[in-house]
Order: sequence, then C-alpha cells, then structure tokens
Amino acid sequence: MNKIEVCFSPTLFPHSDSADKIVVVVDILRATSVICTMFKNGVKEIFPVRDLEEAQAYKQKGFLVVAERNGQKLDFADFGNSPFYFTPETVGGKTVVYSTTNGTNAITVGRNASVVTIGAFLNFSAIAKFLMEQQKDVLILCAGWKGKFCLEDTLFAGALSAKLIERGMFDTKCDSVYAAMDLWAVAKDSMDTYIEKVAQKHRLKKLGLDDVIGYCFSFDVTGLVPVLDGNRLVCR
Amino acid sequence: MNKIEVCFSPTLFPHSDSADKIVVVVDILRATSVICTMFKNGVKEIFPVRDLEEAQAYKQKGFLVVAERNGQKLDFADFGNSPFYFTPETVGGKTVVYSTTNGTNAITVGRNASVVTIGAFLNFSAIAKFLMEQQKDVLILCAGWKGKFCLEDTLFAGALSAKLIERGMFDTKCDSVYAAMDLWAVAKDSMDTYIEKVAQKHRLKKLGLDDVIGYCFSFDVTGLVPVLDGNRLVCR
Repeated sequence: MNKIEVCFSPTLFPHSDSADKIVVVVDILRATSVICTMFKNGVKEIFPVRDLEEAQAYKQKGFLVVAERNGQKLDFADFGNSPFYFTPETVGGKTVVYSTTNGTNAITVGRNASVVTIGAFLNFSAIAKFLMEQQKDVLILCAGWKGKFCLEDTLFAGALSAKLIERGMFDTKCDSVYAAMDLWAVAKDSMDTYIEKVAQKHRLKKLGLDDVIGYCFSFDVTGLVPVLDGNRLVCR
Repeated sequence: MNKIEVCFSPTLFPHSDSADKIVVVVDILRATSVICTMFKNGVKEIFPVRDLEEAQAYKQKGFLVVAERNGQKLDFADFGNSPFYFTPETVGGKTVVYSTTNGTNAITVGRNASVVTIGAFLNFSAIAKFLMEQQKDVLILCAGWKGKFCLEDTLFAGALSAKLIERGMFDTKCDSVYAAMDLWAVAKDSMDTYIEKVAQKHRLKKLGLDDVIGYCFSFDVTGLVPVLDGNRLVCR
C-alpha cells in the first residue's frame, strides 16, 4: 500500500523525505490552476522560475513571460496570473516563462523528488488517475501564502487524499492528511460560503481579480497532467 | 478588536510578526500539559532548554532535570515526560530544568514575543481569561512534531480561538485559525475516536506511554497560567 503525506508549506518541505516520492505541487489561487489552463490551451512548455531577475533575463532574450508578485502583474511581464489570459491564441504552441509569489517557489522547492507534478481542481481526476498508476508514495505540497498555511490548497489536498484513500490503493499516518480530508469534508458542499474564510479570496477581491475563483474550484476542465522534466513543465 | 493567528509549527514561526503579540505555546502531548501539571503541583520555576548538552550541564550542577527525546526519558535525566511523574512530592517548591523533543524548542523559538505563555486543555479557561485581559494580539504557536503539523495542538488552537472569538473580543483573517476551529468543531464531541487519527497517540502507545492521553485532553485541571520571565517559566 502506498502512502500519502501532505505538506502545508514549502517552508515545511525539508522536514519530509521526498526522494522516492511523487510530489504534487498545489497552488489553487492561482499558479497551478493557471498552469493547467495553459496546457489545456496548447502551451508547449513552461519554465517555472523563482527569481524575478531570471524572469527578466528570459524576457530580454525574447521569451513570453508571465510574472506576478502579491497578485499583480509586473511591468516587464507579458501577462499577469489570471487563468483567463491564457487562450489558445496567447499560448498555443509557445514556450512560457513563469514566476509567481508562491507557486513557482513550491515547484522549485519540490525539485529533488522522483517526480514533480502539478495538481489543481481543474485536472483533479487526471492527477488522481496518474497517481494511482505510478505505485509510488505521494507527497502533496501546498504552496501556501508566503510560507504560511492556506485553506484553498489544503482543501484540494484533502479532496485528492480522500479520493486516493477511498480507492483503497493508498493509506496514511500523516496528521496533515487527516486534517486536510476533514476540512474538505466540512467545505465541499458549501464552497460558495466556505470561500469567505480564505484570505487569498479577499486579497484577490481587493485587486479586482477574484473573478477567477469559481473557475479555479471547477473540477476536471482538463485531462492533462503537467510534470517537471528537468527545469521545464511539460504534459503527459 | 484584537487579532488571533495560529502558527502550525515552530518552523513557520519566522513568517509571522510576533513582536507585539502574546505567544501561546502549545504541545498537548505532552510538554505544555506537563508544564501545567508541574505548576499545579507546586513547582517553583521551570527552565526550558533546547539542547541536551545544556540540560546535562544543569544536571551536573545538581538541578532536577526532566529530559525526553522521541517520547523516551534520557538516561542522565531524573524524569521523563509523563505528567503523572510530577506530584507535589517530586516537584513542590523546586526548580526544574526541562528539555523535550518539540515543546521546549517552541518555547525557545517564541522568545522574541512581547509575552510568551503556556497553553493546554489543562489550563484552558485560565489561559482564555488571561488573553482576554491583556488586550493584545495573540499568536498560538503549535509545537508540532519535529517541525511538522500535528493534530492535537491544532485542536487546542481551534478550541481556544473559538472561545476568544465567541466572546467578541477577537477576530481573525488567518486561514490557520479557521482551519483549527473547523477541525475542533469536527473532533470535539468525539475525541475518543478522533484521537485515533493523531500520530503522536500511536507513537506514545508503542512506548506504553499513552495512558496520559485522557488526562491531557481534560479541561481546567488548573487555574494557573505559566509565563516566560527571562529564561524561566513562572506562574501568574
């Protein structure tokens, strides 16, 4: 029986042994939802970069750059971080360089795992199926907010853990998994009201960017599973 | 209105600004339950020390030393970490040097706060009353397990947050507080079964030390509130 763990922040990741595990990076609002959307709409590959200097250097070399900090698009970037920007017209067939406040940091932190993949409600059934096929232990890495715990990534971790455990192919001894599953059970039938507890919802609302929330909590908009291949995300 | 935050691990503590806050350190199984028990039974003061070398040096100077790692008493120590060891006969009027796997680390990490205090179910109403009197923002610091999230400290954080918010003197914008309160709401009426999810319960059971669990989840065994005064815990 394979094991599931949940890690609530990239800051906590060094406390987990990830060497022979599949790491699922989660940043529901908004990086992993954006990544799934880009692949759905035909992006060729995505280079997640942690540092803005690196993102700027790519821009100077002519790459399409998506860069955001604290929710807002940076001046030098081509796009900010709303999934709605990424249509077949804007990203189809292209290489994108991508840097965000939390999500790309989590991808970078998870890099030593045997496989790093991208999870969101948007590819929920696809990522669950992928994990069930791999027969490896799974570590769900929540991007959180500037190192802190966040609810929306935890709810996804709970939904995914519950699905994998219900199928009888995974179990857990991880307190974080139980917490995430219990929170998902509390929230799942009333997401419209539960979302009011989510600090990131209010941050996005202040910026006029909360129109993406309903979409980011939609299940199975795509059947694609982005995975890290060297320093770029590609799709299986 | 004062604010409440919860921090799920000492590793996450640097992400929070604690300078003008009251930090409530929580390690339900078992350090903060043990500390409350020692004060209930008349200990004069407790020196929490993080390093074993420091604890050993105190022992050589003739101090009464309580030291545990991974649940088990260390050879050089006078006592391990069960609250049942600490009767008026063993600790009444004495100075105790105390070092444990998680709890004393959390106390050390929290030291820069304006006030550091000790919370447990055993002094629940007393700590809640103390916090309501102080009119400062509160940060509940869960000791966790070797830097990881743990359920039992989170449940306490949820119970305490709910009590403070219900009284109308505190509010929150912290996802961790909402998560902790929701988990406490799930668990509180079925702690006997919910405890099976808690990894530390199973660790203690393996060592034959799980006889303390019912006691550590008992409310209001003492009305005392231990606070850090320099490098020692004393009682108010």
